[in-house]
Amino acid sequence: MFEQIQKKKSFLCVGLDTDLGKIPSYLLKEKDPVFEFNRQIIDATADLCVAYKPNIAFYEALGPKGWESLQKTLDYIPDDIFSIADAKRGDIGNTSSLYAKAFFETMDFDSVTVAPYMGIDSVKPFLDFDGKWVILLALTSNEGSMDFQLTLSKEGKPLFQDVLEKSSQWGTPENLMYVVGATRGEKIAEVRSIVPEHFFLVPGVGAQGGSLEEVAKYGMNAHCGLLVNSSRGIIYAGNGTDFANSARKEAAKLQEEMGKLLEKYLPK
Amino acid sequence: MFEQIQKKKSFLCVGLDTDLGKIPSYLLKEKDPVFEFNRQIIDATADLCVAYKPNIAFYEALGPKGWESLQKTLDYIPDDIFSIADAKRGDIGNTSSLYAKAFFETMDFDSVTVAPYMGIDSVKPFLDFDGKWVILLALTSNEGSMDFQLTLSKEGKPLFQDVLEKSSQWGTPENLMYVVGATRGEKIAEVRSIVPEHFFLVPGVGAQGGSLEEVAKYGMNAHCGLLVNSSRGIIYAGNGTDFANSARKEAAKLQEEMGKLLEKYLPK
Repeated sequence: MFEQIQKKKSFLCVGLDTDLGKIPSYLLKEKDPVFEFNRQIIDATADLCVAYKPNIAFYEALGPKGWESLQKTLDYIPDDIFSIADAKRGDIGNTSSLYAKAFFETMDFDSVTVAPYMGIDSVKPFLDFDGKWVILLALTSNEGSMDFQLTLSKEGKPLFQDVLEKSSQWGTPENLMYVVGATRGEKIAEVRSIVPEHFFLVPGVGAQGGSLEEVAKYGMNAHCGLLVNSSRGIIYAGNGTDFANSARKEAAKLQEEMGKLLEKYLPK
Repeated sequence: MFEQIQKKKSFLCVGLDTDLGKIPSYLLKEKDPVFEFNRQIIDATADLCVAYKPNIAFYEALGPKGWESLQKTLDYIPDDIFSIADAKRGDIGNTSSLYAKAFFETMDFDSVTVAPYMGIDSVKPFLDFDGKWVILLALTSNEGSMDFQLTLSKEGKPLFQDVLEKSSQWGTPENLMYVVGATRGEKIAEVRSIVPEHFFLVPGVGAQGGSLEEVAKYGMNAHCGLLVNSSRGIIYAGNGTDFANSARKEAAKLQEEMGKLLEKYLPK
């Protein structure tokens, strides 16, 4: 991962939240509009990003043909670019094993996002796949993140800290990353101090409103340790026949900023 | 729901954890073995149960054709029997809306299981569908349930209690149920005292090892308030050409026991 980041001077993840109601309408006459849109986005951005993250809900909502579009999209992502199934799965052991099988074997994603509420046996089955990654929800940036993630324990520890501390014993920085929302620099610094080595997937830049500079300043470690996602800001930058070019421009802006931030904050 | 329970003298939910490796091998020559198995199980048990619960992981692991088997299964479930998509989804608001759309519109499930970690905006979009139900994870019975669900807050409250108290403000007993693991009677009593009116989906009887009598004794309310699931104990009771009959026998045993428990514990 770090090698790709250095090569491309980018830690950008492009979120493929592909919505039939939002893609250019002329694509709707294609046999598989979702895949056609994704294909053009990937062609236009592959040299600027290090990961693609299809948001599985968008595909699932389309029924069986959505899963076919997803499979085709995954097959189209270049092998040296990290793929993330943003699925937020999590169930008891034997069921989590099947979700892991769905994303790592039936499909061949490099990683999947997982929810921690059910504890160790809901996460371990994903970690058991060699060469694959779990990206565990830790601290998110949505409104509801305050309902439970920040609840203080008897020892004065917020729940997300407990999730980080326990789960970092289940996996290693080589197979476990965390979803860390990017709303406030101090929170990112706090998470970084608990898990100094792990990669963070940061979903909150752009539409969800975090600052890229804050994320880099407080979250970067010696291997960068950051994947910053942008979905709508890139893929829906344009809505005409030149949508892919508009997406490229937005991705290039972020990549340029990321290049500078790597210069500035990556420990030498 | 209560009407069905009274009519059938049963609060049984049959879990459709349909696994190509476990169904009778002669079915594998069918065009859609998963659906064929489910169809026969449904025919054999429909008068004994009040709900069917496909575990979505089993279908997802089969790729697009698994989703087709799931849709056919759902279409085959009689209209007066409650259908549960055991999917444990949960994401930020606009993504949860799409998961809700997937299960309530693209498919037409009556309910879906949802994970609480991301808070109110991950749950609300499911509750916004008229006539549909959310079944929220509260206290599960797996090994990992102890990792976070029992963590005590500063006020001495376990996390699952916080989940129950907050979420019961988001929905009503008419659109919100809870997943409550059935390992110990005292825990069920504790949950019941926090949410006296809501239905519980109890997954832990049978393979996961809870006692049906304990569940009824400590969990039943004036409208029964219980759906007790059994998956493997019923659907894999036999493995030959008479598998559906074997399943019926196991379901009938549970129904008979449930009939007695309704006599005994349902407040008159």
